Amino acid sequence: MKFIEQLNKRYACKQMNGKQLPQEKVDAILEAIRLAPTSKGLQSFKVFVVESQALKDEIYKVAAPGQPQIPKSSQVLIFAPYLDLTPQIIEDNIALVKASRPTLTDTHIQEFRDSMRWITNRDKATNFEWSKNQAYLALGFALAAAAVEEVDSVPIEGFFPEKLDELLNLKEQNLGSVCLLALGYSDKETDYNAHLPKVRKEHQDLFNYL
Amino acid sequence: MKFIEQLNKRYACKQMNGKQLPQEKVDAILEAIRLAPTSKGLQSFKVFVVESQALKDEIYKVAAPGQPQIPKSSQVLIFAPYLDLTPQIIEDNIALVKASRPTLTDTHIQEFRDSMRWITNRDKATNFEWSKNQAYLALGFALAAAAVEEVDSVPIEGFFPEKLDELLNLKEQNLGSVCLLALGYSDKETDYNAHLPKVRKEHQDLFNYL
Repeated sequence: MKFIEQLNKRYACKQMNGKQLPQEKVDAILEAIRLAPTSKGLQSFKVFVVESQALKDEIYKVAAPGQPQIPKSSQVLIFAPYLDLTPQIIEDNIALVKASRPTLTDTHIQEFRDSMRWITNRDKATNFEWSKNQAYLALGFALAAAAVEEVDSVPIEGFFPEKLDELLNLKEQNLGSVCLLALGYSDKETDYNAHLPKVRKEHQDLFNYL
Repeated sequence: MKFIEQLNKRYACKQMNGKQLPQEKVDAILEAIRLAPTSKGLQSFKVFVVESQALKDEIYKVAAPGQPQIPKSSQVLIFAPYLDLTPQIIEDNIALVKASRPTLTDTHIQEFRDSMRWITNRDKATNFEWSKNQAYLALGFALAAAAVEEVDSVPIEGFFPEKLDELLNLKEQNLGSVCLLALGYSDKETDYNAHLPKVRKEHQDLFNYL
């Protein structure tokens, strides 16, 4: 199937059936997230892969009572950017660039370090919003990969981040949850969205040619 | 080629060669943006497709002097969320849902309208950041589609939004630019990034299993 047809076929799954995904499909979705580009290459977020049924049940109960997909999903991904982009996070990234690109000279590396000073000079809240944008781009890659793998999925913003952060001690890890992605298989009988036509603006209402 | 291999092959193109893309490739990338999911299905942004060479030159000169890809690109996309999510934007979306899903009853439609009241009750800045997140998710879909189409691309945050907004009179259209995507073909001789290994965190440094 062509990519655009796969994207056309995907939709926000409203009920899942509790069946487990094959590990290779989960791995492909996670690999798409890992390959997603991020500004300055910082990948300034963590992704939690919730497999435990008890924890999925607890998340549903405590932090996302409106989302019955969560306990019936195969995996729930939690996208959590860093609350504070510390100098250490920047230095770890520079070390990764150095290790990945051994032909770069010390001058290149110093220029790269200098090009990141504006990040540590900005306030935490601005950097968190910036990392959040990068996490959403990666969420886009994950959703596209799920479509390609024919995995049902639903991105979830309807949860209580502060309750989820408390449940998982995210603040203590310098992280804050911003969005979830439930992965699994639709329960076709109760998943009302599976049978409804897709709603999208017409091309001319979304794009302006200049 | 498999999707993950295509994502692995893509990279941030640092120099383009000025050649034009076939229209069907551009159309596929735009269609991926149109199909991207957005919160409440609002698609609360516009995407400008800059084809004019004079305008690409002007954008480079006035709003993005550090981005030589722009004048040598085939198209530059500008993602611009709405500055204010007005009641009219919400009502237009409700009308679209009604037209796309004729089986929905008036009660369904009223429930849907009620479920959106928190949007118009929030302040403009919060809604703009929210729409920005949705635009980044759609940017992810665009980048993935470009990889599938074997089109070189580069997402660009390094520009002056206020200058670009002024150049295109975006504020008067209730829009604000947040990110760009240049599409085209790499100039392999000067595109230094084409030959450098990809830098990504190891799987275990990005993902936490729970």
